[in-house]
Amino acid sequence: MDKNQLVALITEMVIKQLCANSGTNKIPVAISNRHVHLSQEDMNRLFGANHSFKIFKNLSQPGQFAYEEKLTLVGPKGIFENVRILGPARPKTQVEISVSDGIKLGVKAPIRDSGDLDQSASLTLMGPYGSTTLPEGAIIAARHIHMHPSDAARFGVKDKDRISVKVPGARGLVYNEMLVRVSDNYKLEMHIDTDEANAAYLKNNDSAEIV
Amino acid sequence: MDKNQLVALITEMVIKQLCANSGTNKIPVAISNRHVHLSQEDMNRLFGANHSFKIFKNLSQPGQFAYEEKLTLVGPKGIFENVRILGPARPKTQVEISVSDGIKLGVKAPIRDSGDLDQSASLTLMGPYGSTTLPEGAIIAARHIHMHPSDAARFGVKDKDRISVKVPGARGLVYNEMLVRVSDNYKLEMHIDTDEANAAYLKNNDSAEIV
Repeated sequence: MDKNQLVALITEMVIKQLCANSGTNKIPVAISNRHVHLSQEDMNRLFGANHSFKIFKNLSQPGQFAYEEKLTLVGPKGIFENVRILGPARPKTQVEISVSDGIKLGVKAPIRDSGDLDQSASLTLMGPYGSTTLPEGAIIAARHIHMHPSDAARFGVKDKDRISVKVPGARGLVYNEMLVRVSDNYKLEMHIDTDEANAAYLKNNDSAEIV
Repeated sequence: MDKNQLVALITEMVIKQLCANSGTNKIPVAISNRHVHLSQEDMNRLFGANHSFKIFKNLSQPGQFAYEEKLTLVGPKGIFENVRILGPARPKTQVEISVSDGIKLGVKAPIRDSGDLDQSASLTLMGPYGSTTLPEGAIIAARHIHMHPSDAARFGVKDKDRISVKVPGARGLVYNEMLVRVSDNYKLEMHIDTDEANAAYLKNNDSAEIV
């Protein structure tokens, strides 16, 4: 490499870094507390087949919402009451907890991408009508970023990539292994759990930056 | 800079990186749960002037130990019972909590280096003999690495530096703003709190690596 090539290379890297610092790579943060996605079958078991669920509020991801109804998670070492149920119903019930929740419940949930429930942890759910013990379904959701295809193009990433995202401050850190999820139905947002947020002292709507 | 200087500089950086990847930069992890360092005056207030404290066990840092006695932290929104007291006594009482502990207690503790208590958070301590409300003293301890001067020389860092430390795995991340604390009395060990450990799914005695 001659001097001119070297200068060109360094210039390119400096520009890339400056772009990275200019806010164009910013991603809004959303912190996920423990929550449950229920199958229609488990909705009937926990609330009764005649119960009609009420929507509490829409979530930031289009088509996703939280119900007014809540349930109780029961583990061998502890319980959590008033746990939020998200809709719409899914083919299989999925419970998302944090590492510290798992310690309190006494449940060894694996770190998984959403939907990957094979041999995940067992947990009991309790509703006002009945209860059910899931043979599997409890996971610690892998940190991920929802993005529209236009965001993915802008960032130069694709669905299922694992990337690194930096947050600033006195507890600043870089999250590695951040799963990229791309869909026409998604809005740009980074989803981390409460442990991950507290480790960086992040709050909802703070912003993070792709490295 | 001429070509030879450039080659020397690049060679140095490559060697540094290779060393970083070779495992020589490994640091054992110790996870700090909430705990209290008491002044002699507060020991007397909480346990009575005639109480003689018993040592429960020595800690990994030379000269530091945990007492058998425990106390209760009382905040406006919650309490924590059975909180560990570490010794020896300090000139001023210092309470170290995590971000999630602060949320449960209802206390806005700042992120501080140990000993930097000026205008930190107020908190009430309750013992079997009496209680005391600290006007200040509750902090979220800044993540830090204890090291002996020989470790600091090996890593090329000095006391009060802030460095970056990487941990691997499905929840892998890089802790930035990691305070370096160097003393003849210290043993190599990275101290993070429970939120920081859970964010990376780390356990005691796992190892991290200086970037």
